Amino acid sequence: MKSIRDSVHGDLHLEEFEVRLTDTPEIQRLRRIKQLGFTYLVYPGANHSRFEHSIGTMYLASRLARNLQLDEDTHTLVRSCALLHDAGHGPFSHVSERVLDSSHEELTSKLIKESQLGDILSEKFSVKEVLKVINGEGPLGQIISGELDVDRMDYLLRDSHYTGVAYGVIDVERLIYNMKLDDGILLLQSKGVQAAESMLLARYFMYPSVYQHHTTRIVNSMFRRCLGKLLEKKVINEHEIYRYDDTDIISLARSEEGYIQDIMGRLDTRQLYKRVYSLKFDDIDNPKRIFQMSDLTIQKVEEEIAGDLGVDKDFILVDVPEYPIFHEMSTPVSLNGDTVMLGDISNLVMALKDVRFNHADLCIYLPEEYADSASKLNFIDYLNL
Amino acid sequence: MKSIRDSVHGDLHLEEFEVRLTDTPEIQRLRRIKQLGFTYLVYPGANHSRFEHSIGTMYLASRLARNLQLDEDTHTLVRSCALLHDAGHGPFSHVSERVLDSSHEELTSKLIKESQLGDILSEKFSVKEVLKVINGEGPLGQIISGELDVDRMDYLLRDSHYTGVAYGVIDVERLIYNMKLDDGILLLQSKGVQAAESMLLARYFMYPSVYQHHTTRIVNSMFRRCLGKLLEKKVINEHEIYRYDDTDIISLARSEEGYIQDIMGRLDTRQLYKRVYSLKFDDIDNPKRIFQMSDLTIQKVEEEIAGDLGVDKDFILVDVPEYPIFHEMSTPVSLNGDTVMLGDISNLVMALKDVRFNHADLCIYLPEEYADSASKLNFIDYLNL
Amino acid sequence: MKSIRDSVHGDLHLEEFEVRLTDTPEIQRLRRIKQLGFTYLVYPGANHSRFEHSIGTMYLASRLARNLQLDEDTHTLVRSCALLHDAGHGPFSHVSERVLDSSHEELTSKLIKESQLGDILSEKFSVKEVLKVINGEGPLGQIISGELDVDRMDYLLRDSHYTGVAYGVIDVERLIYNMKLDDGILLLQSKGVQAAESMLLARYFMYPSVYQHHTTRIVNSMFRRCLGKLLEKKVINEHEIYRYDDTDIISLARSEEGYIQDIMGRLDTRQLYKRVYSLKFDDIDNPKRIFQMSDLTIQKVEEEIAGDLGVDKDFILVDVPEYPIFHEMSTPVSLNGDTVMLGDISNLVMALKDVRFNHADLCIYLPEEYADSASKLNFIDYLNL
Amino acid sequence: MKSIRDSVHGDLHLEEFEVRLTDTPEIQRLRRIKQLGFTYLVYPGANHSRFEHSIGTMYLASRLARNLQLDEDTHTLVRSCALLHDAGHGPFSHVSERVLDSSHEELTSKLIKESQLGDILSEKFSVKEVLKVINGEGPLGQIISGELDVDRMDYLLRDSHYTGVAYGVIDVERLIYNMKLDDGILLLQSKGVQAAESMLLARYFMYPSVYQHHTTRIVNSMFRRCLGKLLEKKVINEHEIYRYDDTDIISLARSEEGYIQDIMGRLDTRQLYKRVYSLKFDDIDNPKRIFQMSDLTIQKVEEEIAGDLGVDKDFILVDVPEYPIFHEMSTPVSLNGDTVMLGDISNLVMALKDVRFNHADLCIYLPEEYADSASKLNFIDYLNL
Repeated sequence: MKSIRDSVHGDLHLEEFEVRLTDTPEIQRLRRIKQLGFTYLVYPGANHSRFEHSIGTMYLASRLARNLQLDEDTHTLVRSCALLHDAGHGPFSHVSERVLDSSHEELTSKLIKESQLGDILSEKFSVKEVLKVINGEGPLGQIISGELDVDRMDYLLRDSHYTGVAYGVIDVERLIYNMKLDDGILLLQSKGVQAAESMLLARYFMYPSVYQHHTTRIVNSMFRRCLGKLLEKKVINEHEIYRYDDTDIISLARSEEGYIQDIMGRLDTRQLYKRVYSLKFDDIDNPKRIFQMSDLTIQKVEEEIAGDLGVDKDFILVDVPEYPIFHEMSTPVSLNGDTVMLGDISNLVMALKDVRFNHADLCIYLPEEYADSASKLNFIDYLNL
Repeated sequence: MKSIRDSVHGDLHLEEFEVRLTDTPEIQRLRRIKQLGFTYLVYPGANHSRFEHSIGTMYLASRLARNLQLDEDTHTLVRSCALLHDAGHGPFSHVSERVLDSSHEELTSKLIKESQLGDILSEKFSVKEVLKVINGEGPLGQIISGELDVDRMDYLLRDSHYTGVAYGVIDVERLIYNMKLDDGILLLQSKGVQAAESMLLARYFMYPSVYQHHTTRIVNSMFRRCLGKLLEKKVINEHEIYRYDDTDIISLARSEEGYIQDIMGRLDTRQLYKRVYSLKFDDIDNPKRIFQMSDLTIQKVEEEIAGDLGVDKDFILVDVPEYPIFHEMSTPVSLNGDTVMLGDISNLVMALKDVRFNHADLCIYLPEEYADSASKLNFIDYLNL
Repeated sequence: MKSIRDSVHGDLHLEEFEVRLTDTPEIQRLRRIKQLGFTYLVYPGANHSRFEHSIGTMYLASRLARNLQLDEDTHTLVRSCALLHDAGHGPFSHVSERVLDSSHEELTSKLIKESQLGDILSEKFSVKEVLKVINGEGPLGQIISGELDVDRMDYLLRDSHYTGVAYGVIDVERLIYNMKLDDGILLLQSKGVQAAESMLLARYFMYPSVYQHHTTRIVNSMFRRCLGKLLEKKVINEHEIYRYDDTDIISLARSEEGYIQDIMGRLDTRQLYKRVYSLKFDDIDNPKRIFQMSDLTIQKVEEEIAGDLGVDKDFILVDVPEYPIFHEMSTPVSLNGDTVMLGDISNLVMALKDVRFNHADLCIYLPEEYADSASKLNFIDYLNL
Repeated sequence: MKSIRDSVHGDLHLEEFEVRLTDTPEIQRLRRIKQLGFTYLVYPGANHSRFEHSIGTMYLASRLARNLQLDEDTHTLVRSCALLHDAGHGPFSHVSERVLDSSHEELTSKLIKESQLGDILSEKFSVKEVLKVINGEGPLGQIISGELDVDRMDYLLRDSHYTGVAYGVIDVERLIYNMKLDDGILLLQSKGVQAAESMLLARYFMYPSVYQHHTTRIVNSMFRRCLGKLLEKKVINEHEIYRYDDTDIISLARSEEGYIQDIMGRLDTRQLYKRVYSLKFDDIDNPKRIFQMSDLTIQKVEEEIAGDLGVDKDFILVDVPEYPIFHEMSTPVSLNGDTVMLGDISNLVMALKDVRFNHADLCIYLPEEYADSASKLNFIDYLNL
């Protein structure tokens, strides 16, 4: 047994098997991946790593498993899956994901299969079984990656602790205590509905404050363009993105010349691109079209604007907002013997269905030195929406 | 006015002048310097940066300045000095300091003079004045770098928040409220004695738990050897150490071959050297001699052990403990009209004078693969103590 | 200057004038009035007093006043009003209010006028001016008792701290920082909208969890009946209810015989009445009629049920829910130069308009020993809704 | 199973047997006994009850029992004892204890035997066994009432939470995790020594700040005199002191005339006696004599002073400080196979042996109106020390 002091949950205890998993280079790499990418340029405390989040998720998975009275082997399975669930994340976590062809779940599966993680796991479980759980299949999968999973609980608490934004403080105890396994389905008991509503709202409030804070979006867009260029030039091997850490990417970018070096230099010195345009959802009909803009379309828009401004096309960043997914809405709830969906019985959640798009807007960023000339453009014309 | 959300103190407000100082590459670099170096290998949450600490110190300096009723210009001076006080820190903060010839205070002075920081400052103050305050001279210097300074208050609170070790939680309000300027000397009022005792003990408890945790000492020794080698090979320019960030050093080390690459690889994968020997203070006469061991002596000991083990001398790390300095003991206290020293009126502080050496021990580390052969050696014989 | 350590806000500082107000028996009495009445029978930590809340409100008022850059006299006026705003509360705070003919605001005005509080105040201000502010008139009144007032901020934070229910943790800094006085109106800046939404939701979640928790409602109903009887028998002088503290009422009730002694004994030993009926809003048409049921109607219902059960009518408690008022919805917000209402621009707040009735239900309670016989009754028939 | 939300530890879960114990009038009475007596006149948040502390202690006992891997029955026994350990406390907890002939442990034993608590307990255990544990006998007794017991851990955390004084924040996890049962003795593992030192210091700092704060001592002395008078007049039955709650005593005192009513009125309105004399330990030889002053001696001193001042003897309160007991010093520690005492291996604890008397002083209080005349007296002459 080994114990690790976590700043959010206190002392976490690892069994020998878990220590072996943790001690692999694949899991240790997560110490060098920032959980919130470049958000530390907005919230200076947001330097926490995916490693902390992984062991924190393992801890919550363990509490939920105990509450569900899982047998010891299943308990260990759930803990191991929680520990590994993010192993495939590329540098800077989700920020890099949008540039890659594979999701972090796919990459995690690939990494586990080809690394010693698979070997260690197969001493106790079939790797296939593990991957199913990590990918959210079956009742155990619901614990790690379901509508109301421990992954989300941990990151809300953790991101609050490190950013200093209190919105993410949720009632984990009430949530975990009110989950039951029923006929192979993970159900929320009706007594936990309020805690679930509150968690949904916590996440909703974290969006504009942290995850989609307007400056966070600028730095993320800048970094994504930088990473895209590195991939394009094959400086980085996309298929092994889970071998790199944040340091690798930054130092590779610094060693490049031209555009890549320039944009990394701006990130280093926090000389950020400026937002020159914001298209709010209220401003157009059928605004959800925005989410469907293809990469090709976006690229074309960028090229046109760049052409008219007389600058390189990579200086124009058209930032389509992330679709605000709230799987929690479909959490199955046990209510008077029936199973219903949270979104169907909670008027507050119902309201959130629309409200969540409130803060979404399409933005255009470019270097400060071109902001003046850009102010003469009529951006809506380029968008063809 | 700009506001920054700090995870420890809440919203911090910056005036335009301070924003300009903060926006320099010199201060932005501090975002990429970990406050506690490689301690994140022991406490996974300890990823916080020297940037956060700098603005946190500015905040506390501001509260103290307001309590002392300083005029507006002096207030700004104190704030600026607090913001800049750590600007010269090398990568990984204090860990690198022991390898360098200059202290971080000297480097800070040099950096301010030769960078745009000096230019901005000189719009309002003489740079000389600023450097005096940063170096702890005069009553204003006492605020930033004195016996009971805001620098220490901030790092205790901050290191507690991020490591999850509660010992550093101190009563900042009571401390600040009980400081008074009297005839150019910053005095603690007697009502604040207990808060000061408690802060001293907080720091004392943080030593073995965090700052000198036995694993922290191993990783720090490993990194220092690595950095020493980089300096020796002139891969890094010692005189401009304040131009590098953590990422620079790590990627430079990774690009090297042989020993440097090896030891950085071990840090990356957390395959740490093992402690094969610990000499406790109780085990020898006049133990304080240990602190006086010269670098040359240490090197000789390492060489001899290496020779007998038949390994390269750099695989042997003799780690002399840091002398536990507690300047707080000499805090001047105003007591019934007299000025006395905290250490003279507090029996608890008096007791701490000896107690602080309790946890100090000289240690020897080497790679795990040599630990077995090393166990046959009689280390005390090499030390000549 | 005097300082008081508050468990929520830390050290609070009082000027000499405020110390004199605080030292009156009228304000000291508030130490002996529980902020949440009998809620401590549900949340054992909810023993906090209206005194703490009063000085906490004064502290927040002070921060807001400083942010609004009020001059020193006005600042003191606001602080004094915050300190006194609840002075007229009867024992057990709001629980008693529903039984009385006067609101606690009216009683506060009366008490200030007839006690030494008025004398002290009139050294600096006109009492009329003070009462206007306390009653929410004018821009200063908005600070203490407006749509988004410091009273509410304090009680949410405080009730969270003492009950252990985290929902009430709100972003006071962001709220206060985003309030501005504009042409005599206290406006929320648009940057603070999210913090206001979040506060509204915090309060919404506190309702079913704490303020209208189903057991809280039972104990409150029991106590109100007990108090009603004491008033009826003129054991207590309603017109001087602000002279009594919690202890007075309890010991007066214990000294009585019959029903009063019985029900107080049940509260003392936590042998609570049982809920035998709950009419949810969804169960009837036009449910808001419930809020309009007159005391006489309720009494008649109770009598009829008691008659059919063959018990004394005071054993039947028909509990009409409190109308969930959310004045925050009409908070004036400054948005692009216009002034709009929070409820008009926030879809989330709009949603809350209906959602807030979700948890409201009409309940019927009676002693456990009659619960069995009561289960045969068809309660809806008695209600004539 | 029932769950209770505690503001310090979160959700606590009670088994059916424990619910029955909790639902007795004897345990419910503890909701109406303030944990820190009249300390709320100094720290306005200190209104917490002995009930909260009892269930909090049960929770910590449970965590320790689980760590010690006790079997289920023994676990329940330990939990029940923790829940009941303070059942015999008189009103206002420890404040009343000094006036009574029996300790609260003796009263607890008596109460359990003569009430239904004994009947319920004897369904599962022998009452004798329970009393042994509550009184600290045997290894289980050490959990509840030993050198390093869960009672102390809970009250330090709880008193910190409610007073806002951070000193009591201790590392409960580390303490509990490092306790082991060895041959029937509860031992601290050497890895927990620092946490134990820190807890000892936490308690040490809480003394002058809270438990023996100079104003706390005044209000406690006032109340003790009041209670003494009530006992003397047989208004209260000393042998059944555990039948009364705080409200009973206050209302009984208010109904009295003369001295008793006067002093209770002063407590109600916080018109406290003034300290006119303080004899510090440094001022006399062999100062520990002070602790040995008999009640008779004290009474004589009070009479003589009263005589010379021409006032009733009850207006003079000579307050001998409490002997600062730190049983934690004798905590048995397992160190390299041996069992040693904490005080013998920790220099810090050794230092505390003397230091703890630093804040102790003998004080004399009397009503403000006599303070002037009293200032002419030479108090040391009356003391015969």
